[in-house]
Amino acid sequence: MSQQSQPKLVIIGGGFGGLYAAKALKKATLDITIIDKRNFHLFQPLLYQVATGVLSPADISSPLRLILRGHENTTVLLDEALDIDTGSKRVILKDHESIDYDYLIVATGVSHHYFGNDQWQPHAPGLKTIEDATEIRRRIFSAFEEAEKENDPGKREAWLTFAIVGGGPTGVELAGAIAEIAHGALKGDFRRIDPDDARIILIEGIDRVLPPYPTNLSAKAKASLEKLGVTVETKSIVTHITGESLTVRQGESQKEIKAKTILWAAGVKASKMGEILAKSTGVALDRVGRVMVEPDLSVKDHPDIFVIGDLAHFAHQGDKPLPGIAPVAVQQAQYLAKLLNRKFQGESLPPFKYNDRGNLAVIGQNAAVVDLGFVKLSGFLAWLIWVWAHIYYLIEFDNKLIVMIQWGWNYFTKGRGARLITGETASAHIGNLSADASIYASKSGELIGKS
Amino acid sequence: MSQQSQPKLVIIGGGFGGLYAAKALKKATLDITIIDKRNFHLFQPLLYQVATGVLSPADISSPLRLILRGHENTTVLLDEALDIDTGSKRVILKDHESIDYDYLIVATGVSHHYFGNDQWQPHAPGLKTIEDATEIRRRIFSAFEEAEKENDPGKREAWLTFAIVGGGPTGVELAGAIAEIAHGALKGDFRRIDPDDARIILIEGIDRVLPPYPTNLSAKAKASLEKLGVTVETKSIVTHITGESLTVRQGESQKEIKAKTILWAAGVKASKMGEILAKSTGVALDRVGRVMVEPDLSVKDHPDIFVIGDLAHFAHQGDKPLPGIAPVAVQQAQYLAKLLNRKFQGESLPPFKYNDRGNLAVIGQNAAVVDLGFVKLSGFLAWLIWVWAHIYYLIEFDNKLIVMIQWGWNYFTKGRGARLITGETASAHIGNLSADASIYASKSGELIGKS
Repeated sequence: MSQQSQPKLVIIGGGFGGLYAAKALKKATLDITIIDKRNFHLFQPLLYQVATGVLSPADISSPLRLILRGHENTTVLLDEALDIDTGSKRVILKDHESIDYDYLIVATGVSHHYFGNDQWQPHAPGLKTIEDATEIRRRIFSAFEEAEKENDPGKREAWLTFAIVGGGPTGVELAGAIAEIAHGALKGDFRRIDPDDARIILIEGIDRVLPPYPTNLSAKAKASLEKLGVTVETKSIVTHITGESLTVRQGESQKEIKAKTILWAAGVKASKMGEILAKSTGVALDRVGRVMVEPDLSVKDHPDIFVIGDLAHFAHQGDKPLPGIAPVAVQQAQYLAKLLNRKFQGESLPPFKYNDRGNLAVIGQNAAVVDLGFVKLSGFLAWLIWVWAHIYYLIEFDNKLIVMIQWGWNYFTKGRGARLITGETASAHIGNLSADASIYASKSGELIGKS
Repeated sequence: MSQQSQPKLVIIGGGFGGLYAAKALKKATLDITIIDKRNFHLFQPLLYQVATGVLSPADISSPLRLILRGHENTTVLLDEALDIDTGSKRVILKDHESIDYDYLIVATGVSHHYFGNDQWQPHAPGLKTIEDATEIRRRIFSAFEEAEKENDPGKREAWLTFAIVGGGPTGVELAGAIAEIAHGALKGDFRRIDPDDARIILIEGIDRVLPPYPTNLSAKAKASLEKLGVTVETKSIVTHITGESLTVRQGESQKEIKAKTILWAAGVKASKMGEILAKSTGVALDRVGRVMVEPDLSVKDHPDIFVIGDLAHFAHQGDKPLPGIAPVAVQQAQYLAKLLNRKFQGESLPPFKYNDRGNLAVIGQNAAVVDLGFVKLSGFLAWLIWVWAHIYYLIEFDNKLIVMIQWGWNYFTKGRGARLITGETASAHIGNLSADASIYASKSGELIGKS
């Protein structure tokens, strides 16, 4: 193939950063390989809708091969990068031996961060993968089932208490969606409990929700959440989490909240590639392991290696690093495509500059907050902008028309058709995830009928 | 509640039999409890479409509570029946202690049957649950990924060989769908393999596929399968299955087929409730553990206990028992509703009679076989009837409009948007299911990023 003699670009990660880099380089005279552990691109901004039974996993996932089918210069490789050899310019892989590169883009994102309390993780799962989402979905809907079964009032209350740790966009979205489930979607479904009795508690360490937003939008978001029936606890630091409760410190006092369903939306840390890059290139990492990138998104002293998306700490614009959101990753990907094209023509490009088109967070149906810089909105209009913005991104993929129809349907019926409790029966859902998985194994592995 | 003094009907199983019994008894003066281990009714006839990446689990699942929300006389209980005490008229439960009944309907269906070779099961999963379907989906799409990675031509061929054991409707549907994936949906998606090279082998013990159908329809089904690129091996008895191959006996000769993906569609056995009923009532079971029911679907000497659906062996019509298909279960459920209503008025009802409206099996897009008794059809017209019949059933549920739109989309694009490889990475997908599940656990349990 003639491509063999073209410069080799390897992209690690098929999220917004990696995928959009490949997309933007469709016509480039490069031999591109995009590596991901999964066979699909995940539209993470809507993951909370899978976790809360609105959408199905496939609705927000598109096969990478399908998206890149028409890209003759691009190969999709299902594999995991284990190391980078900058001397011989190779990425060491798990299944394949290795792959050579002339240019390397690393866009492997972030995962949950429990601030040194990894033992909390089985009791308070975070939301990053499709499996996280179906696991959280299982826990939420199982909790109502368990409450329906429970005779002890105290225990029933614990099953009907949902605590979400972290008041950023994901925490706000989850809290709002669970409130809508409890106070709307499940109405009339139970005989012994009233789902309306459920308590949804959103816990945030600082003094307001949605910290990156202007204070008046934070206040509006809080008001919207409270209208939906969410208890917002600010200035509350989580000090302990078990399978039965969580403990928060509020100023001088501590209190324990009995809750069977605890979700983690409080922090992220860089994926392993951050450390690997630090070791192989000597690049500096920030406090959560993200890679400090140069103004052109390259790694210091390695002009052939770039880091973009959530994994990159870009400190050259404003007084804070750029936020870990899809628009930043996409713009960085598009910048790199331009940069590489210019490079081949012997030209250069000014440093990357993020064009902030605004911040969006949804609280519930008809309720969102939008900060477009020149205008700040909340309520129904903000929600319409949120819907429009997400559809705008989604339509770039295959059959995401389905999402719109599903939304339309849910909007008018307030139903949650995708509220499947899968992977395990409802009976023992809290506890160690490995134990859950062995139940899962016996479910799919044994010869059992429905009953 | 006034219901406390009404006769108590307990229904075990939320499949077609149990659910339709509850539906038909909406206005009955009964205190009805429907017990299922899962929180949703599964539209099993379309499960193969989840297994082959056309539909999402939620598309063919409806929450039982949602379907029965308007039924004031009905309680949905998520639990598992462990035993029946006919003396005190109680069903012993796993989570709740027990539940009293005046009338009992058992409709817990069937599971896979490996004819004494349960060790084959991890290598050749069957298709009964949502988890089965996503596991099979993972195996099918992972196989193409593994083939793309494989350098050894022999091993690559084994990854591209799909063997389906059993030429009944499920086997035919799976084989047809996999052929469409290999020869259509994945076209252009890979760089090193051509999915078109895949071999799909359908293995049937007797001399034709679709044994319950007239011979000329079997022949037409075989021709349609072969047109799709399926190799149909009849008079072939499977004698051995490993993670690498299966061995079949054809007359005097044996042959080994190297295949990494083997699916089981060859046999079913009754769910555990069959045995439990035999022990508690003394009722006779058939060879595969199904309950021999009386002409009115009751259990001998227990006029208050009924068995319907796949678990029932109804031998009072024709020379074979009624087939284990949804229409039989639904008609039996509707018969029982009528019977119970008559009983309360001191009247009786003639024995159950199945009104056979025909048999349908789909082979692929535009190809199906239909036996309506008075007319036998194959090809496009048969396929239209199949689509119509399934939509007719589906529209009784909530938002199954989505299924139709998804079908329409797939029809024109030949895409497989739901081809997610979830639960595990593609790298080690064959082998013991417990081992797979522990990988699953570490995936959802560990702090890993995308890469």
